[in-house]
Amino acid sequence: MTQQQRQALDEILRHAPFDVGGEITEQRGIFHEMIAAAPLPEDVSAKQGELGGVPVVTVETPGLDPSVAVLYFHGGAYALGSALDSVGLAADVARRVGARAISVDYRLAPEHPFPAAIEDAVAAYRALLDGGVPSERIAFVGESAGGGLVAATLLALKDTDLPQPSAAAVFSPFVDMTVSGASATGKAAVDPALTPEAMRIRVRDYLGDHDPASPLASPIFGDLTGLPPLLIQVGSHEILLDDAVRLAARAGADDVPVELQVWPGVPHVFQGFAGMLDDADRALNSAAEFVKRNWAG
Amino acid sequence: MTQQQRQALDEILRHAPFDVGGEITEQRGIFHEMIAAAPLPEDVSAKQGELGGVPVVTVETPGLDPSVAVLYFHGGAYALGSALDSVGLAADVARRVGARAISVDYRLAPEHPFPAAIEDAVAAYRALLDGGVPSERIAFVGESAGGGLVAATLLALKDTDLPQPSAAAVFSPFVDMTVSGASATGKAAVDPALTPEAMRIRVRDYLGDHDPASPLASPIFGDLTGLPPLLIQVGSHEILLDDAVRLAARAGADDVPVELQVWPGVPHVFQGFAGMLDDADRALNSAAEFVKRNWAG
Repeated sequence: MTQQQRQALDEILRHAPFDVGGEITEQRGIFHEMIAAAPLPEDVSAKQGELGGVPVVTVETPGLDPSVAVLYFHGGAYALGSALDSVGLAADVARRVGARAISVDYRLAPEHPFPAAIEDAVAAYRALLDGGVPSERIAFVGESAGGGLVAATLLALKDTDLPQPSAAAVFSPFVDMTVSGASATGKAAVDPALTPEAMRIRVRDYLGDHDPASPLASPIFGDLTGLPPLLIQVGSHEILLDDAVRLAARAGADDVPVELQVWPGVPHVFQGFAGMLDDADRALNSAAEFVKRNWAG
Repeated sequence: MTQQQRQALDEILRHAPFDVGGEITEQRGIFHEMIAAAPLPEDVSAKQGELGGVPVVTVETPGLDPSVAVLYFHGGAYALGSALDSVGLAADVARRVGARAISVDYRLAPEHPFPAAIEDAVAAYRALLDGGVPSERIAFVGESAGGGLVAATLLALKDTDLPQPSAAAVFSPFVDMTVSGASATGKAAVDPALTPEAMRIRVRDYLGDHDPASPLASPIFGDLTGLPPLLIQVGSHEILLDDAVRLAARAGADDVPVELQVWPGVPHVFQGFAGMLDDADRALNSAAEFVKRNWAG
């Protein structure tokens, strides 16, 4: 069954009109239609608001613990996607964790290049802390570029007066803007969603003339000492496999408690397909257990 | 508390007379005294026997499920240690998994070089299957060279008529006989137990003139496709950190379900210090959960 599910998902993605590297306005629309197509479950509430001057969508499911919060970062190669587009996955996380997910609508490239997204992430986190939620009761969760933004934000926090959150979970994080992992080419044939060429187009949008190997752009080249416990999930059928592996390697070498899970035969951000792919449900359950295990108190 | 425990363990290991690279007969004695010093809990039974012509020690704790079994592989750089030396750790695993641990007394180098250990491991596993325990109810667990032996044995099984076991969990696996990971030097200062020079001495004992980069000697250079779910635990204070990271990377790239856990600030096979180090208990609990999750039925 699981293998059939994986193949079905692969087929769907291969035939989808979405192209990460395509013309930005068109692709934003396609991305929105593709991942926001599934209706939200009736018991999910999604409210637009702002946090520290940054637009956010607060996603709630029944029975959540109001004393804890997930700060959520959507994907889209820093140029696509939105908090509303990813409400479904944020809700899947929120429900399993038993916490509201505050999905940050950080500014996108090319209109707002690096480091605008990181500035927004820090501003939203600071406002959440100022609002009375202690850092030990906040977890960061992000997918794809949102996972990279989680890692970059944790790194950026080291140069502020703010404490680290309790933990961070990232799904298929995009953390190497040099697109130099062996999987960038080695997994290209089995990746139904992404190509290295497309990623490089979006990197140019995001970074302009900034060094793609600088730590805040590519956290795998940073000193990750002091980061909180990190869970990294990735599929084996994606060109970003080595982004995940190298983030785990760097974090582990820097004495960060880190857990890497490689899920075979599944694509980029497979967690977005809960309900049709058993692996997605299992991975989300595991991520939620990780987040809950790291709440203080 | 945890940080104090880590520092205390570091001190103990730094002042221990054990030297992995030292004269073999003397070091076998010191190794035995060091890791077999703690008395076994009264409710642990350890019986010597044989399996497929290979000496084993069967370790049992109360209330175990007789339908499942852990095939256990002790550490000691392929030249030191024994099933009896590692009975304490095997019992800690057996109790948490709720299965007997059959600890394999595979032949040691230099008297019995590569691939004697792998032959013994395959023979013991074959006899366990022939005795009526199905592969889906058997897990492999190993520490250090025993973890490397687990990986090498799984690889060797691909060229036999035998099925893979249900899963494998390895603690600080020694899987690179070329001793070429960045951590071999990068972590030397913080590793209280091992040095790359000492490992190279034991590699010569084990491999003689065999190519250290051949897959059965160093599974990180093998094609791991078809291996069962793999859990890899490692401390960040050990020169073998990159053995674990590269095993995870290779397995993940080869579509093996793999989970890597890096535990910060703890040394080689820290799981052997349950009761005095909270990290050890937590890691063992996590490993047991992993094994139980992968039993069929």
